[in-house]
Formats: sequence, C-alpha cells, structure tokens
Amino acid sequence: MPSDHTTTPRGSLRELLKLPVGERIDLRAYDAAATPGGPPGKTAGVAAATELGPRLAELQERLYAASTAGDRRRVLLVLQGMDTSGKGGTVKHVIGHFNPSGCRVRAFKAPTEEERAHPFLWRITQALPRPGEIGIFDRSHYEDVLIARVRGLAPPEELEERYGQIDAFERSLADDGVTLVKVFLHLSYEEQRARLLERLDNPDKHWKFSPGDIDERALWPDYQEAYEIALARCATDRTPWFLVPADRKWYRNWAISTLLLEHLEELDPRYPEADFDVAECRRRLLTR
Amino acid sequence: MPSDHTTTPRGSLRELLKLPVGERIDLRAYDAAATPGGPPGKTAGVAAATELGPRLAELQERLYAASTAGDRRRVLLVLQGMDTSGKGGTVKHVIGHFNPSGCRVRAFKAPTEEERAHPFLWRITQALPRPGEIGIFDRSHYEDVLIARVRGLAPPEELEERYGQIDAFERSLADDGVTLVKVFLHLSYEEQRARLLERLDNPDKHWKFSPGDIDERALWPDYQEAYEIALARCATDRTPWFLVPADRKWYRNWAISTLLLEHLEELDPRYPEADFDVAECRRRLLTR
Repeated sequence: MPSDHTTTPRGSLRELLKLPVGERIDLRAYDAAATPGGPPGKTAGVAAATELGPRLAELQERLYAASTAGDRRRVLLVLQGMDTSGKGGTVKHVIGHFNPSGCRVRAFKAPTEEERAHPFLWRITQALPRPGEIGIFDRSHYEDVLIARVRGLAPPEELEERYGQIDAFERSLADDGVTLVKVFLHLSYEEQRARLLERLDNPDKHWKFSPGDIDERALWPDYQEAYEIALARCATDRTPWFLVPADRKWYRNWAISTLLLEHLEELDPRYPEADFDVAECRRRLLTR
Repeated sequence: MPSDHTTTPRGSLRELLKLPVGERIDLRAYDAAATPGGPPGKTAGVAAATELGPRLAELQERLYAASTAGDRRRVLLVLQGMDTSGKGGTVKHVIGHFNPSGCRVRAFKAPTEEERAHPFLWRITQALPRPGEIGIFDRSHYEDVLIARVRGLAPPEELEERYGQIDAFERSLADDGVTLVKVFLHLSYEEQRARLLERLDNPDKHWKFSPGDIDERALWPDYQEAYEIALARCATDRTPWFLVPADRKWYRNWAISTLLLEHLEELDPRYPEADFDVAECRRRLLTR
C-alpha cells in the first residue's frame, strides 16, 4: 500500500485499501500513520470529509426510498480494531452524516448469558440492517475469532470451525443483497499508548478507561496475529477486508466516508417511480 | 399560548408549550404557524438550532457516561402528529445533533402479525431506550388510541381501557428513570395540503406519498378530536404533552431541540469518577 499523498480519483480508494485475498498478511508491513489516497493534511482532510456529508445523505435516502418499492439492498459497515482505534469515533463522525432513522447501530460487548446460550452468529443476525438501511457494527462476529482465540474462550477445534462459518455467513448476506464494508482500523502500539494516556489525563474521559485495557494491551502481539489470521481467512473478492490506517483520526474519518461513498455510488440506488396516478391525486388534493 | 416573538429565557420553553393537564383541549385555539418563544425568523431560527448542537451532544455523552456507572436515567422523545407534520424531519434535523451510537430510533407503522398477537404496548416495550440512551419514537402507542379510534380498529370498551393503560405505563417508565418528552406536532389543514402537493410535484418525493394519505386527510376532524381526547386523558404533571406548532419547519426544529436541551439540563448528568487508581495505571502504561 503506497503512502504517498496523491489524492486518489473517486472509485479507487477501495482498491488502494483492500487487503489481498488468499494471501498471508503481515500487519507490520502497513504504516498506521499513513494516509494512502488521502488529502494532503488534517485541515484539507477534515474539509474533504465534511464535503462528503450531503452526498452520503442523499445516497442513503435513495437507498431507503428504493426499499419501499421492494429493493432489498442494504449496507453493513463492520468496524474492527484494537481499543482506542476509533470505532466509536467513526460512528460519531462518519455515521453522523446519515439520517439516524435509516441507521441501525450496534456495539457488541462481551456476550450476555442469553447470547452465550446460542451459536455465536445468533446475536449478529438479530442486529442486521433491514432493506434500505445502513447497519453499523462496532465490533462484530470477528470477536469470536479474536478475543476468543487470544483468551482461549472456546476449544481450538471450535475456533477453527468458526472461520468457515463466518465465510459462509457473509456469503449468504452478500447473496441476500447486503453490501459488506469490513474495515480494520490499523493502530500503532505507540498511538494506543498515547490515546490511553489521554483518557487517564482527562477526568471527563475516565469512564472510557478500565485497568483491563492495559492487560489486553499486554497481549498486543497475540491480537495482531489473531487479526492477521482472521483478515486472511475471512475474505473473498465479494467480502474483502479494508485496512484503514488509524493513527490519524482525520484520515480515518475521510477514508471510511469515502469507502462508504464508493460502495453506495456503485449500488446507485434510485428513487422509485410512482405506482399511482399523480395527476388524479393532485386534483383530489386541490378540492379538499 | 402567546404567539409573540419574544425570545424565551432558557428553561421556560417547556412551560410555554406544555398543554394544560386535566382540562379539555381545543386544538383550534392553537395557531399552527405561531413561533412561541422562538427566534424572530427563519434565518435566526436555523442559526439558533445549529448552535444548540454541541451542547446537546455534550449532555448526551454525559448521560451515556453516567449509565456506565449505574445511572439508569434515559430520555424518550415521543413524536406524534398528522401526516407531513414533520416527525421524520425532526429525526433527521434534531436527532442528527446526537451521537448515533447513543440513540435508539424506532418508527412505528401498522402492526405486524406478531405485534397484533400481543397487547398493544408489547411492541413499545421492545423499543424502549436503555439507560444512558436517547430513544426516539416516530409514532408510538398513541396510534392505538388515534387511528384505532378513528378507523374503529378495536371495540369501544377496549379503546376506553387503553387511555388508562397508557397512563399507567408512562408512570411506570417515569418511575424507572425515563424522562418522557411527548411532542404533538400541530399542523394546519392548509399546510398539510401544501406539503402533500409538494411531494406530488417532485418525482424524488413520490415514494413518500400514497393515495391513502388523501383518504386519511378526509378524516381530519376525527383525527383532531381523537388527538384532543388523547392529549387530555394521557397527561400528568410528570408526563405532560408539549404542543409544538409545526407549520414552520425551522421553528419545529428549534423548539424540539430546545425542549430536549431543557430536559437534559435538568437531568444534569455527570461524568462518573474513576473507580481505579489513575496514577498507578499511568505508571503501568508508561512502562509498556
């Protein structure tokens, strides 16, 4: 992935950020502070992301409108990444462009007792977007091959099975009209330290911190390895992973907005045509 | 309700818009184009509503943060009003100020088969906000005493029972920490005509229109009467109704933003204090 600062023509950011399919992945080869295809700096990046807002909102409205006439297509943004990599910030800044009534946001935490009584994909299927909606997963079914692997929360054979189950599940979603946009927020070890310290240094952010975050951080290499395996094993050309360098928040916001825009533009949803007599309705309205 | 254009000191818009409790209500006495307590015109109104955004977002974050330390409080905005009165527009423009991850938006349509198999409040309880969240109902349990009454969808004795059931339900919510903000969007008959015509005249808005909307419009007096009864019978000082004149969209957005702000300011949610040793965590972080 080149990290030069040339602005990319629209339509190609996803080619730039797409992880190779069917190859081993070495996350150390990717610079978390890079800004591939992005604007030349923060000021330009913030402005560019803001400019995308109206177009994103318009395409979302078209997608929703099309669903009222039977179009089943919908979008599902899957956000994965280490603590502080910006999953929540993405929801706030990127999803904030959309009309809230067409968004279905779900943050997945440690599974509840009821969720644990079901297969791991059960709670995921409960939270899927309906036709015309944009779904957003802050963490997802991938936790079941990430923390579950690192912490040994399931037997190795079962973990092994899950990659194939995820793959089959995602193919079934794609068959059903779901455009998956799977984003791995690639953060550096040093930047995570800085962000955790920032939370400690600001009392208004203490609620976002838990000493357990430091214990998880101690397992950084294990998590990176678990990601490398998941990103390689659960990707096809129809359900690829995108690696978004996440050390720079402005780039993250711009890049994810642009990825969503490219996918929505490809869907090209249309306002449905009237299935009623417009002139007749006009006449009826004018007389009452 | 006075319709002069004096700007109201913060904290009192809800007194101005609150409908009397325990009295008969005559909706014809309220001017749908009025702007009580509001800025002097559209330009100022749009600017004032935009200015409220950051404060609303901050209070929402505090509310959410407090919930992580056990605070059960949450807010539920209930939007009711005739077709085109601006329920959807309110979600887009007002709720757009908030972080989507803390909002639970639900639009209630005609009940599904499963919903009809349960008591009318069942589907409502499924959609309630969790502690720390802001819930938004675009239509609500009130449809069960509005369209249900006008269209005779339930036996009269059952309809009669529902007012008391709604009242008891809302009291139980208030007891459980839910701040209810019930808003009736008061639209004029003429403005509805104009908005329906606008949908007909713009092909991109045909999907929002159905000839059935004209049939419902023909029942305008019946709906107004059903509203007058519901607004009078389902209101207490803890669970009042607010009448927001809705002919002017800028006023509607400003007024609902301000109502939410006043309620959130009264809740005055606080960031919780750290329940861990901050200095110790800092040391641990710096060494790894």
